[in-house]
Amino acid sequence: MAVLPSCVRKVISEFEKLPGVGPKSAARMAYFFLRAPSERSVELAKALVQMKKDIVVCKTCFNVSDKNPCDICSDSSRNKHKVCVVEELLDVVAIEASGVYDGLYFVLGGVISPADGIGPENLRMGQLRNRIISYFDSASDNSDTELLEIIIATNPSLEGEATSSYIIDMLSSINEIDHSKIKISRLAMGLPTGADLEYADRLTIKRAIEGRTNA
Amino acid sequence: MAVLPSCVRKVISEFEKLPGVGPKSAARMAYFFLRAPSERSVELAKALVQMKKDIVVCKTCFNVSDKNPCDICSDSSRNKHKVCVVEELLDVVAIEASGVYDGLYFVLGGVISPADGIGPENLRMGQLRNRIISYFDSASDNSDTELLEIIIATNPSLEGEATSSYIIDMLSSINEIDHSKIKISRLAMGLPTGADLEYADRLTIKRAIEGRTNA
Repeated sequence: MAVLPSCVRKVISEFEKLPGVGPKSAARMAYFFLRAPSERSVELAKALVQMKKDIVVCKTCFNVSDKNPCDICSDSSRNKHKVCVVEELLDVVAIEASGVYDGLYFVLGGVISPADGIGPENLRMGQLRNRIISYFDSASDNSDTELLEIIIATNPSLEGEATSSYIIDMLSSINEIDHSKIKISRLAMGLPTGADLEYADRLTIKRAIEGRTNA
Repeated sequence: MAVLPSCVRKVISEFEKLPGVGPKSAARMAYFFLRAPSERSVELAKALVQMKKDIVVCKTCFNVSDKNPCDICSDSSRNKHKVCVVEELLDVVAIEASGVYDGLYFVLGGVISPADGIGPENLRMGQLRNRIISYFDSASDNSDTELLEIIIATNPSLEGEATSSYIIDMLSSINEIDHSKIKISRLAMGLPTGADLEYADRLTIKRAIEGRTNA
């Protein structure tokens, strides 16, 4: 890339830091901005800086938002008796896009991954614990406290499974709450829509058979 | 994406305008900046704006540079008797990276593509014509004018081939120059390094056979 002026190389090197962007894609992106009218560069530049200024993390679910609590947490039409625990922000987006979930969320901020040096202490386990305790506290004067469903929606990966097990253990060790009022569930595992059995991996088929439902 | 704050959606929509970036990659990029320290956003924002400010198009070869003429055109160690005609800026980068070319360049700015409404009049054909004429003008007092090699390095696509043919016709119609002093060449076509004959397409194999060289 020595042939490119330093200002172009700088843009390429910034794009290369993005996830999933290699040197060739980064060059193509920089080149796009070279050819495009200046507004394109200015618009992206402004949007990036503005986003970092405006963004707020919801103190209840740790989703990003432009206010605290976020739109989901403050939406009175949502079911407060369901909390879906996800790894990352984009998981909230994916579940919302499905349009079938009406409960609340909790964003862990990652998964337990010893290989990357990430333990439970690097995730929002304490905050999740507090969130569950406060659900029961706020309803403590009511002996009819409604059942709280905690849906663990970590990814079906090794790390996601380990994190899920950790959460289940952590929740069962909370003494302050009535465990008969908690239901813990996991997202179903099996064949994805449109999949071809012939090409599905063995573990997926195993899970699909184990989790078979009545027809 | 309704669940995301508007400032995040704005960043995603700007990233989606980039070549080869779909909605999912754009979201992942925006999410990267959400998690990364503010400097990442500021650095990219500054680099983009700076690039558009600093960039200069070389009036000789139409490569981008931070000066005019560019580093390649003003490099006295390069062979002035070779001009490699390429479609785009990144083609210059690719050829330079190979380290085997010591001549000059000419960036056409695209290819003839009737489907996209791009004809020769939308490319730098007139400028290429003038560049060739001026080569002979500047050497006109010397009856020993050195041979000028014009290497047409458009892509081996339908459009690249059509553009190449157009250039050859255009060059042969220039009356002001001594055609015995011009050599026009094309990049070799055949099997790419590391290719597997079994998986090569028919046209590539056809070209590899037609262009076979003595062993």
